[in-house]
Amino acid sequence: MKESAPLSPTQLTLFDRWWRAANYLSVAQIYLLDNPLLREPLRREHVKPRLLGHFGTTPGLTFVYLHLNRIIKEKESRVLFIAGPGHGAPGVVAATYLEGTYSSYFPEVSQDLEGLGRLVKQFSFPGGIPSHAAATTPGSIHEGGELGYSLSHAFGAVLDNPDLVVACVVGDGEAETGPLATSWHSNKFLDPRYDGAVLPILHLNGYKIANPTILARIPDEELTALFRGYGYEPVIVAGDVPDEVHQAMASAMDHCFDRIAQIRRDAREGGETARPVWPMIVLRTPKGWTGPKEVDGKRCEGYWRSHQVPLTDLDKPGHLEILEHWLRSYAPETLFDEKGRLFEEIAALAPRGDLRMSDNPHANGGQLRRPLRMPDIETHALAVPSPGSVIGESTRILGNWLREVMRANLEQRHFRVLSPDENNSNRLNAVLDVTDRAWMADTLPYDDHLAPDGMVMEILSEHTVQGWLEGYLLTGRHGFFSCYEAFVHIVDSMVNQHAKWIKTSKEVPWRRPISSLNYLLTSHVWRQDHNGFSHQDPGFIDHVVNKKADIARVYLPPDANSLLFVARHCLESWDRINVIVAGKQPEHQWMDMDAAIAHCSQGVGIWSWASNDKGHEPDLVIACAGDVPTVEALAAVRILREEAPHLRIRVVNVVDLMTLQSPSEHPHGLDDVVFDNLFTVDRPVIFAFHGYPQLIHRLVYRRSNRGNFHVHGFREEGTTTTPFDMTVQNELDRFHIVLNAARRVPALSGHAAYMTQMINDKLVAHNRYIRQHGEDMPEIRNWRWQEGCDS
Amino acid sequence: MKESAPLSPTQLTLFDRWWRAANYLSVAQIYLLDNPLLREPLRREHVKPRLLGHFGTTPGLTFVYLHLNRIIKEKESRVLFIAGPGHGAPGVVAATYLEGTYSSYFPEVSQDLEGLGRLVKQFSFPGGIPSHAAATTPGSIHEGGELGYSLSHAFGAVLDNPDLVVACVVGDGEAETGPLATSWHSNKFLDPRYDGAVLPILHLNGYKIANPTILARIPDEELTALFRGYGYEPVIVAGDVPDEVHQAMASAMDHCFDRIAQIRRDAREGGETARPVWPMIVLRTPKGWTGPKEVDGKRCEGYWRSHQVPLTDLDKPGHLEILEHWLRSYAPETLFDEKGRLFEEIAALAPRGDLRMSDNPHANGGQLRRPLRMPDIETHALAVPSPGSVIGESTRILGNWLREVMRANLEQRHFRVLSPDENNSNRLNAVLDVTDRAWMADTLPYDDHLAPDGMVMEILSEHTVQGWLEGYLLTGRHGFFSCYEAFVHIVDSMVNQHAKWIKTSKEVPWRRPISSLNYLLTSHVWRQDHNGFSHQDPGFIDHVVNKKADIARVYLPPDANSLLFVARHCLESWDRINVIVAGKQPEHQWMDMDAAIAHCSQGVGIWSWASNDKGHEPDLVIACAGDVPTVEALAAVRILREEAPHLRIRVVNVVDLMTLQSPSEHPHGLDDVVFDNLFTVDRPVIFAFHGYPQLIHRLVYRRSNRGNFHVHGFREEGTTTTPFDMTVQNELDRFHIVLNAARRVPALSGHAAYMTQMINDKLVAHNRYIRQHGEDMPEIRNWRWQEGCDS
Repeated sequence: MKESAPLSPTQLTLFDRWWRAANYLSVAQIYLLDNPLLREPLRREHVKPRLLGHFGTTPGLTFVYLHLNRIIKEKESRVLFIAGPGHGAPGVVAATYLEGTYSSYFPEVSQDLEGLGRLVKQFSFPGGIPSHAAATTPGSIHEGGELGYSLSHAFGAVLDNPDLVVACVVGDGEAETGPLATSWHSNKFLDPRYDGAVLPILHLNGYKIANPTILARIPDEELTALFRGYGYEPVIVAGDVPDEVHQAMASAMDHCFDRIAQIRRDAREGGETARPVWPMIVLRTPKGWTGPKEVDGKRCEGYWRSHQVPLTDLDKPGHLEILEHWLRSYAPETLFDEKGRLFEEIAALAPRGDLRMSDNPHANGGQLRRPLRMPDIETHALAVPSPGSVIGESTRILGNWLREVMRANLEQRHFRVLSPDENNSNRLNAVLDVTDRAWMADTLPYDDHLAPDGMVMEILSEHTVQGWLEGYLLTGRHGFFSCYEAFVHIVDSMVNQHAKWIKTSKEVPWRRPISSLNYLLTSHVWRQDHNGFSHQDPGFIDHVVNKKADIARVYLPPDANSLLFVARHCLESWDRINVIVAGKQPEHQWMDMDAAIAHCSQGVGIWSWASNDKGHEPDLVIACAGDVPTVEALAAVRILREEAPHLRIRVVNVVDLMTLQSPSEHPHGLDDVVFDNLFTVDRPVIFAFHGYPQLIHRLVYRRSNRGNFHVHGFREEGTTTTPFDMTVQNELDRFHIVLNAARRVPALSGHAAYMTQMINDKLVAHNRYIRQHGEDMPEIRNWRWQEGCDS
Repeated sequence: MKESAPLSPTQLTLFDRWWRAANYLSVAQIYLLDNPLLREPLRREHVKPRLLGHFGTTPGLTFVYLHLNRIIKEKESRVLFIAGPGHGAPGVVAATYLEGTYSSYFPEVSQDLEGLGRLVKQFSFPGGIPSHAAATTPGSIHEGGELGYSLSHAFGAVLDNPDLVVACVVGDGEAETGPLATSWHSNKFLDPRYDGAVLPILHLNGYKIANPTILARIPDEELTALFRGYGYEPVIVAGDVPDEVHQAMASAMDHCFDRIAQIRRDAREGGETARPVWPMIVLRTPKGWTGPKEVDGKRCEGYWRSHQVPLTDLDKPGHLEILEHWLRSYAPETLFDEKGRLFEEIAALAPRGDLRMSDNPHANGGQLRRPLRMPDIETHALAVPSPGSVIGESTRILGNWLREVMRANLEQRHFRVLSPDENNSNRLNAVLDVTDRAWMADTLPYDDHLAPDGMVMEILSEHTVQGWLEGYLLTGRHGFFSCYEAFVHIVDSMVNQHAKWIKTSKEVPWRRPISSLNYLLTSHVWRQDHNGFSHQDPGFIDHVVNKKADIARVYLPPDANSLLFVARHCLESWDRINVIVAGKQPEHQWMDMDAAIAHCSQGVGIWSWASNDKGHEPDLVIACAGDVPTVEALAAVRILREEAPHLRIRVVNVVDLMTLQSPSEHPHGLDDVVFDNLFTVDRPVIFAFHGYPQLIHRLVYRRSNRGNFHVHGFREEGTTTTPFDMTVQNELDRFHIVLNAARRVPALSGHAAYMTQMINDKLVAHNRYIRQHGEDMPEIRNWRWQEGCDS
């Protein structure tokens, strides 16, 4: 890289002034309630009673922002800014204010003294703005509250955005997290022909809340080896003398953007196909740079004590003076004119219009989002002449349709299918008929469907998959994430944060809706009999149901055609987190496409072909949600109808789980009258459920008949065994359902002893058989609804 | 490293035979139901009907195991083996069988033909053993079902075990996960004086389920740079000709164990204090090594197709023959004698007694576990002359006691306090009075309580903290994990896996109990008003409550003395996951130590000093769980008693959340009679709860009075605001509780309109005040139970 001094003395002076202005406003936001430009001496009542914010990382963020602005102006680059340390929001907000964007989004925060007053007061203040780079921050797609995802968001954002550069500041605290540590490898999935570029800026300010950071405390040789090993060319910028660091940073930026331009030219014009070594910057500057060196004799600048608010108790003698001295050290009178407006020559450092990072259209991706071109599902429907007459692999059929979705949107390059190395295992391989898996690492002649421009993304990191997808959605595109059900818990906390982002975005008037985050959970608890207990966990549904009702959706389509309908619905939706649970194994099919559309449009309904309560109040409701529970429920119905033909049974299947909740709690909740019509107000409801039984109890707790719900589901029993034995171990199987019915239904009381004996014999026979043969009894494997059915 | 050939021709022949035996038994476990040594021609009925298992990684695991055995014998090293790719269990089980341990733990799986028959049949078979290196596998502390934690488990295991080496095989699939990617940095926390050593063996077999792995597809220069950057000296062993790889591996092992010995000597005798560069091995061998090269013309060995079962349908023409040919390629007749016993000269390659990795006592840590020396809590009690008369910081008081626990156990070095950079933020800093934070990276003169031998562990990675702690507990020690409540979700899936391990361990007769996994969740949802929405999430409780009832415990001590009692209880317990939720901010204190002991011993109880229903059925029950909800509940009680003195109110506080559940569902569940005595069978219960309200509904759904429970809790509303406003936004505040009571209690119906008006006025005043002043109204901030209380 060039070791020259790219900034002229005049530029350097201007740079220093802009940086002082941004840092001044940052400190002012943290501290000041009033007197925003210190036009009068600082008094105690000018200071907020509660001091909330993070100063430590802020001067580094403003520093980076300033230097990116120079590059944007000089090279007309389109840059999006991600602040990994999003709690440095005072700096980000200050920068967006200085370039005028903030006032255009929030006109009351105007470019004058009054607006400045509002700007400083609102920060971390009730009714104002939060302390992180949240959805309220123009230009932000990344809150940075929970650490670890800045870089995967950045890579997700540049996919299929060939002209975009995302400059991603990674804090050295965040760099210690697992998700961040592996996301550096995202460069093995970036195609310089079709994708934009990520410029990671690792900010080593040395400290976390109360400890040094690892990467700041290893020798430079290890540090550079690490990033060379990750596949980058690290450029180190270090120092604490601002003018020197300005020059070094300007050189580094020139070098990096030149490299990026060169890589693009090589790939797009020169036909280069090898994976490029992308540049990155390591910026080593003091934590709390420009803040108080010491407070009460204790080290502050360049130490963890500057992480949050360096002076917390201004009632301490002398502290108000330290604060005033600190604020005045930025010389605000040299930065803002009489009216409180940034001096023109400083303001001119910022780019204009949507070249401003704070006004980058990708940061409000909803406004760029075009709906998916959606092939019809009917032509992909599985023929189901009558309920239960066919066995089919639901997700494989979904895969065929997803292939068509992929094909129809291939030209637009705005739809990606992602998974943690499970695309084919989850039976979505048909998608690879029309595209490949993205892959920029080394290849071998016998590789299978790997290509730089593939639209399927697989890495064995649920975190990275989730981060990429979030970045992709937030910048206005579409995606579909398939995952083993048990392991989607790995991203529980990321789902929380994304749900919070969506919820907050909806309250920000200028934020436009983004595509929903769509999960297919397959390889689910009931059919991980081969992989054992560690692979058996249905708890993600419980997790998602805790999210805001207008965001969370859970669907349990029982067969292929209902899965197609639900999947299309989810891909068409926006601002939601959609969870679809559906198995990949050959399974009973119940509905032709018309029936599936009718049933799924309601989300829940009586399966009259399986019921014999026509026109009457039933003796018993058998309810089911999920593919395997539906099979067991129907098999139980068959046993009951054979053993007790007089019994009036109603079968209710639930696809949209949220219909069970009260309408006061969820927009999909059934009206109480409709619910009572389905589930009765006083008859026993035996409910075969895919997940933990308590979830059903929780969802129906406001319903009249709640006391009669008896739920069979996962009871945390599992191992490597047969598929049917998984249901037996958890008492979700047909036999336990029948046993429960015999106990609960008054009309069966005469039968109870006989049926109990019969069922226990069945269970003993099952157990003996599987231990001898290692597979389920033929009567289980070959069971069909059709045979002998009286409907 | 030495490039010599350390193995003599005789040794090499024996090595080859041992390895063939282990690989033969691995394949036999995956395939065979009978005819274990192929003494008769292989017939279809000898083969299991369902073929479940993972062959791909297995030959690599057996290869590593064999070479570790040589080192153990030659150097009498104490080595524990962790198989990151735990689904290679056939190989691990085979090895433990070959060295005799398996038969000593499971005598029916004897060292003869009959035992061999049982060995091969039981694998992945109903009633047999699971397909992973689960708790049933002797020598295992790591199941390897969910990938990412092998290395942090390994580091946790060697802490304070100075003579132990953990040889940890990291699969190149697992290496892509975030948790694994950051856990390499654990070497910055290992003190060679007091801790053992981890020898990571990165196994690059090149493929995951259906894709190549990243680390296998970058140039060697990047690969070695990466691991040098992580602080290791990588030794590459690569090849596919067994004899050559044996020699190279033997050299590498010699080198690594010599280096480990040298590092130990330097630190322990030579006074070396710098962080050593630990050795590691990169082993590059084909996936499915020694398996079929091709199946049906498709590449298998050295490709992803060998990941699981290379031949899955033996009814295909010729496939049974391929299998037989494959099995016979290991020449079992040269490995096992007439009786089915491994030939003596091969068996002699294994170490003896507890030097065998499969019999390493640390792998069944419960047998080494000594109880903590437990200082009394009484001397640390906060003086609480009367309920509500004192304000105190609960976790700071806990910190004082934890300091004494640390002091009392410092010599034994078997208790560690861990957190993701939050120990001091969570107010546990007193612990640092008697020990330091473990730190082996570079230091600076002004560093604060960093030392190589510190017993407090902090890294900004919840995954690594959790992994270390699990490894530490599983090897028989004790620990305490404090975490911001919202971010503990990051380890949701790790908690699942640990809960499954405990559950399974309890079913294995020779597994001894281990110390409980103890969480303190602080910096909780109600007091993250300063950090904003991303830091506000109480859902971890919901997650843990789904775990097996005899494992999960959730405690919500409302004040300091109850926290002390609960913490002591948790540290004394075993085989549990204990979640304690308690705030760190100054908060109202209710109980002196005697009262706290009495109350917490029951887990739930009436606070008669706050109630006025003495001797009568109450008109209203106000229940509360959690510190902030308790304050709001009591403040509501005060308002109600002032406004409606005739109203009979009972206050019930819940510390042990599981008491609410039915005794049929949880061992801590209150008997129905006791529950009804507390909560009545028909009076309104207004419940102020720390978490999501639905959890309470779910817990009480079997109770008679469930229909009258009205729960206030977190409704997923939050931002940066004041503490009291957090409760207002979620309607957990005193005013909304009073409003709800006015609506629910018949005795208040005359008052309802008046009270609604009064309360609405209060809420308006609150809102106006905080937006003007940025802090809560004085009447909120200064509220005390004491003043004007009529008790």
